[in-house]
Amino acid sequence: MLIESSSNPKVKKWMKLKQKKYRYQSNEFIVEGEHLVLEAMNSNVVKEILVKEGSTVHLNPAFNGKQPVYILKENLFTQIASTETPQPIMAVCEMKSKTIERHNRLLLLDRVQDPGNLGTLLRSAVAFGFDGVILGDGCVDVYNEKVIRSTQGAIFKIPIEFHSLKEYVPMLQANGVKVYGTSLENGQPLGEIEEDSQMAFILGNEGQGVNPELLSTTNRNIFIEMTQNIESLNVSIAGSIIMYRFRL
Amino acid sequence: MLIESSSNPKVKKWMKLKQKKYRYQSNEFIVEGEHLVLEAMNSNVVKEILVKEGSTVHLNPAFNGKQPVYILKENLFTQIASTETPQPIMAVCEMKSKTIERHNRLLLLDRVQDPGNLGTLLRSAVAFGFDGVILGDGCVDVYNEKVIRSTQGAIFKIPIEFHSLKEYVPMLQANGVKVYGTSLENGQPLGEIEEDSQMAFILGNEGQGVNPELLSTTNRNIFIEMTQNIESLNVSIAGSIIMYRFRL
Repeated sequence: MLIESSSNPKVKKWMKLKQKKYRYQSNEFIVEGEHLVLEAMNSNVVKEILVKEGSTVHLNPAFNGKQPVYILKENLFTQIASTETPQPIMAVCEMKSKTIERHNRLLLLDRVQDPGNLGTLLRSAVAFGFDGVILGDGCVDVYNEKVIRSTQGAIFKIPIEFHSLKEYVPMLQANGVKVYGTSLENGQPLGEIEEDSQMAFILGNEGQGVNPELLSTTNRNIFIEMTQNIESLNVSIAGSIIMYRFRL
Repeated sequence: MLIESSSNPKVKKWMKLKQKKYRYQSNEFIVEGEHLVLEAMNSNVVKEILVKEGSTVHLNPAFNGKQPVYILKENLFTQIASTETPQPIMAVCEMKSKTIERHNRLLLLDRVQDPGNLGTLLRSAVAFGFDGVILGDGCVDVYNEKVIRSTQGAIFKIPIEFHSLKEYVPMLQANGVKVYGTSLENGQPLGEIEEDSQMAFILGNEGQGVNPELLSTTNRNIFIEMTQNIESLNVSIAGSIIMYRFRL
C-alpha cells in the first residue's frame, strides 16, 4: 500500500511514536534499518513494516508475509525516521515485556541519562550473559530510537524491567542476591571482589554516580582501578568492565 | 570586549573552526563548557576565552588573566557553539602535539568513525595509564567537538599521534613492541593473553573491525570472551576491557 499524504492516520500515528508518552500509550515503538528490523522480526515483535518508495530492501529470511508493508513517499518516510539519512526500512514493534527468570547476574541502572550509554550497557549485558536489566527511576526511555540503535539489537534479547531501586535492592538481598554499588570513594577494587552465584551491579548517573542512599544499602561497593590522572570512566565502560569480569 | 556583530572577523574565524580543514590550517580548536575550559587552562593551551553576555562563569583557579576574554551576544555565542543549549563559556585552544615517550602501552585506532567512541577510548586510555594513542587513516577528527566532549578532558592528558598503521605496526615490532589485533574470528581469548612489557592494541572500525591486512601482520589477535547471543561489542567497550586488563 502506497502512502502519499501526511494526513493519513497511520502517518500521524507513526509520527507520534517519537514521543515517549505515546509509545507507552500504544505499547509500540519504531526501529530503523535493516539489521534492527531483522532482529525485531526474529523476536516476533514486528506489527508493521515501513519502506521508502523506490528502495530495495532485503527482508529474508525472517519476513513471513504476515505483517502489512507500507510503502511511503520519501518525504513522509524521512519525517517519521529519527536519523537524518535513514536506511529505507523501519518497523513498528510491540513492546513485549519478558520477565527476568534467573537472578544470577543482574544490571541495575540508576538515572542513566545518555541514550548511547544505556544502549551500550544493554549490548554488553547480552554479550556477557546477564539475566536482565532493571531500569530505576530517572533513566532515559529504553524505547528512544538512539537507545535502540546503540543496543544493536540487544534490546530484543534480554528481559528489561522497571522498578524503584530503593525497593528492589532489599528485595533482591532478601532472596540471596549480593548487590554491589559502584563508587569512586570508599569502594573495594574490582580485582578484590570475589565471584558469587547471584550478583547484581548498580551503575549510576553520568554526572552524579549512584545515589548515596542506595550505596549505603548495598552489600559492597566497587571501584575500578585506574590512574589518578582522570576523574572517572564513562558509565557504559565501567559497567561493561564489571560485567566482563563476572560474565556467565 | 563585547562582540555584537556576526561580521566581526573574530566571529568569522570562530565559526570556521567548526570545519576540520580550517582547524588544521589555524592549528586551533574550540572546547565548550566550564569543565573542559578548565582542563584546557591546566594544560596551557587556551588562547582566547569566549563568554556569553550576562552569564556568570567561574574561571578560578586556573585563569591567569593572560588570555583575552570576549563577551559575545547570546545569538553569536550560540551560533559558534556546537551544542544546542551550550554552557556559557568556550575556549579557543592551540593544538599542541605531545610526542609519545614510552611505548609500554599503546592504543592504535583503525578507522574509528564515531566521535563518542573515539572520545571514550581516549578517556579510558588515560584512566588505564596508556602512553599514547595512534590514530590511523580514516578515524574521525580528534578535534571534533563531540570527540572532545566524550573525552571529558582526557584529550589534554595523553599524547596523540597520526600515522599510517601499515607502516607504524612493523616499526613498533622492530622496536620490541608486541602488537595485538582484535578480531571476532581466529583470535585468542583475552584471558589467555600474557602480559608483556611493551604492548600495543589495535581497535577497528565500528562496522568492519580491523583491516584484515593489518591483522595478518600482528603478533597475535585477541577476541573478548562472550556469549553467542550477540555479534560484537561496541569498539570503545572492547578497547577499554583490554586496556583495563593490561593497565599500568
